[in-house]
Amino acid sequence: MIQAGIFGVTGYTGYELVRILAKHPDVQVQFATSQSFAGKWLTDVYPQAPHLPLIDEANAPLETVDVVFLCLPHAAAAATAVRALNAGCKVIDLSADFRLHDPAVYAQWYGQEHPAPELLETAVYGLTEWARERLPGADLVAVPGCYPTSVLLGLRPLLAANIPLTGPIIADSKSGVSGAGRQASDTTHFMNVADNFAPYKIGRAHRHLPEMEQVMKWWKADAPPLIFSPHLLPVPRGILSTIYVTIAGDWALGDVAALYTEMYAGEPFVCVLPPGQAPTLAHVTHTNNCVIGVTQAGQTLIITSAIDNLIKGAAGQAVQDMNVMFRLDETTGLR
Amino acid sequence: MIQAGIFGVTGYTGYELVRILAKHPDVQVQFATSQSFAGKWLTDVYPQAPHLPLIDEANAPLETVDVVFLCLPHAAAAATAVRALNAGCKVIDLSADFRLHDPAVYAQWYGQEHPAPELLETAVYGLTEWARERLPGADLVAVPGCYPTSVLLGLRPLLAANIPLTGPIIADSKSGVSGAGRQASDTTHFMNVADNFAPYKIGRAHRHLPEMEQVMKWWKADAPPLIFSPHLLPVPRGILSTIYVTIAGDWALGDVAALYTEMYAGEPFVCVLPPGQAPTLAHVTHTNNCVIGVTQAGQTLIITSAIDNLIKGAAGQAVQDMNVMFRLDETTGLR
Amino acid sequence: MIQAGIFGVTGYTGYELVRILAKHPDVQVQFATSQSFAGKWLTDVYPQAPHLPLIDEANAPLETVDVVFLCLPHAAAAATAVRALNAGCKVIDLSADFRLHDPAVYAQWYGQEHPAPELLETAVYGLTEWARERLPGADLVAVPGCYPTSVLLGLRPLLAANIPLTGPIIADSKSGVSGAGRQASDTTHFMNVADNFAPYKIGRAHRHLPEMEQVMKWWKADAPPLIFSPHLLPVPRGILSTIYVTIAGDWALGDVAALYTEMYAGEPFVCVLPPGQAPTLAHVTHTNNCVIGVTQAGQTLIITSAIDNLIKGAAGQAVQDMNVMFRLDETTGLR
Amino acid sequence: MIQAGIFGVTGYTGYELVRILAKHPDVQVQFATSQSFAGKWLTDVYPQAPHLPLIDEANAPLETVDVVFLCLPHAAAAATAVRALNAGCKVIDLSADFRLHDPAVYAQWYGQEHPAPELLETAVYGLTEWARERLPGADLVAVPGCYPTSVLLGLRPLLAANIPLTGPIIADSKSGVSGAGRQASDTTHFMNVADNFAPYKIGRAHRHLPEMEQVMKWWKADAPPLIFSPHLLPVPRGILSTIYVTIAGDWALGDVAALYTEMYAGEPFVCVLPPGQAPTLAHVTHTNNCVIGVTQAGQTLIITSAIDNLIKGAAGQAVQDMNVMFRLDETTGLR
Repeated sequence: MIQAGIFGVTGYTGYELVRILAKHPDVQVQFATSQSFAGKWLTDVYPQAPHLPLIDEANAPLETVDVVFLCLPHAAAAATAVRALNAGCKVIDLSADFRLHDPAVYAQWYGQEHPAPELLETAVYGLTEWARERLPGADLVAVPGCYPTSVLLGLRPLLAANIPLTGPIIADSKSGVSGAGRQASDTTHFMNVADNFAPYKIGRAHRHLPEMEQVMKWWKADAPPLIFSPHLLPVPRGILSTIYVTIAGDWALGDVAALYTEMYAGEPFVCVLPPGQAPTLAHVTHTNNCVIGVTQAGQTLIITSAIDNLIKGAAGQAVQDMNVMFRLDETTGLR
Repeated sequence: MIQAGIFGVTGYTGYELVRILAKHPDVQVQFATSQSFAGKWLTDVYPQAPHLPLIDEANAPLETVDVVFLCLPHAAAAATAVRALNAGCKVIDLSADFRLHDPAVYAQWYGQEHPAPELLETAVYGLTEWARERLPGADLVAVPGCYPTSVLLGLRPLLAANIPLTGPIIADSKSGVSGAGRQASDTTHFMNVADNFAPYKIGRAHRHLPEMEQVMKWWKADAPPLIFSPHLLPVPRGILSTIYVTIAGDWALGDVAALYTEMYAGEPFVCVLPPGQAPTLAHVTHTNNCVIGVTQAGQTLIITSAIDNLIKGAAGQAVQDMNVMFRLDETTGLR
Repeated sequence: MIQAGIFGVTGYTGYELVRILAKHPDVQVQFATSQSFAGKWLTDVYPQAPHLPLIDEANAPLETVDVVFLCLPHAAAAATAVRALNAGCKVIDLSADFRLHDPAVYAQWYGQEHPAPELLETAVYGLTEWARERLPGADLVAVPGCYPTSVLLGLRPLLAANIPLTGPIIADSKSGVSGAGRQASDTTHFMNVADNFAPYKIGRAHRHLPEMEQVMKWWKADAPPLIFSPHLLPVPRGILSTIYVTIAGDWALGDVAALYTEMYAGEPFVCVLPPGQAPTLAHVTHTNNCVIGVTQAGQTLIITSAIDNLIKGAAGQAVQDMNVMFRLDETTGLR
Repeated sequence: MIQAGIFGVTGYTGYELVRILAKHPDVQVQFATSQSFAGKWLTDVYPQAPHLPLIDEANAPLETVDVVFLCLPHAAAAATAVRALNAGCKVIDLSADFRLHDPAVYAQWYGQEHPAPELLETAVYGLTEWARERLPGADLVAVPGCYPTSVLLGLRPLLAANIPLTGPIIADSKSGVSGAGRQASDTTHFMNVADNFAPYKIGRAHRHLPEMEQVMKWWKADAPPLIFSPHLLPVPRGILSTIYVTIAGDWALGDVAALYTEMYAGEPFVCVLPPGQAPTLAHVTHTNNCVIGVTQAGQTLIITSAIDNLIKGAAGQAVQDMNVMFRLDETTGLR
């Protein structure tokens, strides 16, 4: 039985995580922290939650656990990661702190020096389908961002293949409101979300852009630049990315689709639709699945990729990573 | 006082039109037809509607009106248009029948021969901001489709300028459910729309594609091909198009933005946001406005264009066209 | 031309008011205040708003206006009312400050002494359909609460008639989110509202209860006590109250329905449906109308009453009151 | 291992049922029928469904199963029940056919003679918390309606106690759209549901009324009549009933609340909140739980009762019944 601790359980990601872990046959949650609600119960915050006491982060008994999940704001996560690693815990970080490997890029996009740059190189970028070989020995895993998970899974077969691409890659992404977090704000007020639809930080302005470009270059050194346009959907959860890639030379949809079906043939959580079909959010919400469609429009390949932002885009993938780290069946607790 | 008749008043477009005309100081609605509800009252269908009797199309007293609005399915609209023109009425057609000028293209996309190909050349494509000079003498006006209105208004300053463009133009559009029509179907069932988001007919598969490419070529003979990806939003109304155009050579956002502010400077219903800002549906729903934002991402210009699909994308623009046709102030009844 | 000022224009009630007044042919808005946004423009807060500068309340030029509308929190409203009355303005207060005529009841429900108890007796309770005779000479009008407007208009014909009632009257009311105000909070977070439905302060716990019982006793000295159960609906706007009244002795639905149709026969903004029919929110949203249905269930009369909480339940009724105060046609600017 | 068949799997109730059974450790689904989609796969209808072939009802291999679940329209269900019972299967009927024990009442409310009146007396009304003793030997179980489940669980402790009640009992219920079924119609069109809220069949007009009154009389021979007002909520799922009961004589909330906590103390799926608190839909959606609150308002007790209409109100309770019938742990597959 794996003993686990959760930092920041009262955010949406933490809550989703504790729900998954509560049903996981090989994990026992030893503690759950919350700065805002320490001293209360998780059921005070979420009526359907497991009945766990919420403790202050400072009192977390790190010595009782094998692994900690960090559902904390960036920078705070890195500090806790250091503490947990020093205590001998494995760390699965759902924040952005260990996704970017270049501290200068981190500083540029997150507005501060990285709190623990010495850890960046050792952190495994936990896009499970790609990181499967690197996870078993890892001490520190950075769970990918929600948008990057949807876009990168959609791009990987294409970037892994030796296909010449031209022009920028465009990812037009749409996300549900849980991606904006639990904090009440004008952005998340029902009156501003309902009956509305809003682009934000479009182009090259969102923090997930450098994360995606970093990984794209790992996969294809000459990958084109990315244009990334997030939009806020009036739904609680789910991300659908519509991705446009222009392929040089002549190509046939069947050949490109074959790259997808082959790469993802054995994947338990990635489903490729028949060519020409596209997923909807209803294909994936409340699951750890990523459903992908490929369509042709002239020289341009259109990839549609849907995930649940809180599960495959956060807590579910974190557990998937943990399963691989601890050499469990990868799907345990996720179906 | 202009005497008007409405064909097909019980669809969403017809209903929106009759609401606008009911407040228009220079128009009197003489009759309103409905095949499904003939013999009933409009208030039986829409509780907030004007209290009009619904008559069968065959009984429409064409001799009593100056202009008819056709909110009919395609093909049916063309047949009624012929009848109305023969009776001496002006015709404002909100269907797709007179938007495409090439009958072969019509046949290809609408699956039948055009019912009145001899009228195609004389029909004015009623994108008001562009058609203003052609409308005063026109007898037959084709109101543009909802998606084309949002995309074409977003593209026009760029295509009108002599700027070299490369690669396809990509319009990633998102529409509210009223665009799918009043007919109950799986597509419009609340259970399939709420909490969901769905791409459909993406790439080069939607009937609005040839309409947009036709107009793009009018404006720029060597316009790049269009990729058009519509998506269904869980909201009642509104369209937001995120449009990606790659400009060859070096360019500055300020210069391109100036093309937009200059072209639309005097427009009563088009608003250009400061560079870098983007509209939301909340900027435009329940208005005849089109709000446009321009943003730069490397070589790519991102244009965001928002309209209310039922007003500027249909009934509002139809009235705007009528105002120009009859030499009224263009904004009458629309503010 | 009536010169008007608005205090607290950036709340939902203030915004709805300024939209109505902007189209009112006999009113000119001289100033609009906002504590949170003073120095900005109203369009910075609401993209579709009239382009008005927002000033600090302390700088409001009371000497330039005939009437002020107070869209302020309770207690703050009373203080501003005193100031405005002293400056010779008429005051239309949309807060709760002058609805209750007994300062002890006010203190009990609002947790503080009334700031201006000497004004309570002179304030006219502005349920327009009832207050029509009292409004023309009034200097201070208290616009009824949103829930009370829906419930009281539903009860008035019954309470005005000499019909014996037994047991409590039960008002089971459901309101859209705008009733909870513009302030971001857990209550209004999209994630807590969407896909949810929540009773709150049910029974005899909501501040609108004493307001309703006060008026009910004005109309029928021995009116039964009220049980009032508000619920939060996942919609932006609208209130529907389902009201249960047990009538002693035998009675026929037709007779009771006649009380309603007779009392409201000439009312421009109250519509009584045929017996057995019930309104929905779609009957009333974005209008100043109250639509009422009456149904029989054994001895119990079920009254359904629907309004738009921001219009007939607040800003629209405020303007309706103003029209009567200033001897304009009551419907001016409201259709 | 229990072998099960599902009739009518493509309705919302059938779909929810197959999802539960797919995770049930002691059940194997042998077949699933659909008249509309026979020959296709369940995943063609619901992308997240188990991958089951859909067969025509006539071809259902009854000899291979121990139990059948009927998710069919009324009348059709009774005919299939006869066939299945004759084949030696146990029958769990989710339609209305075996809920009412008086065939005359059935004929009055369902507009036709009962197809199998001889079975009415032997059918067990499967409100599990009440029927637990009757289920183990039963061959035919009628799963209660969704509204009745929410109302009856809310009333049972009160009706079981010897407390004098006066006046009618009022159940003001609000349901999500899935209760209206999978068939596309004006009622379920997104445009008519979103931003709306609608009473329907209020008073004594809905078919669930006689079902509830029948059971109320089983529990308390002199139970007062019921007034039942259903309303349609713009949410996919969930029912919240606000129930008003007037108790004769003096009483204290603590005493009444104790009736609830005592009766439901050991129940795995019924949760009673502390006195004065009320559940929301978020307490229960996607669970088999019923959460109940009790509040006092003068002489009137207000009971709030929330369930998921598709789970505790249909498929979940059906499985709960099955578990008891087959002497499994009652919670198997339901947590």
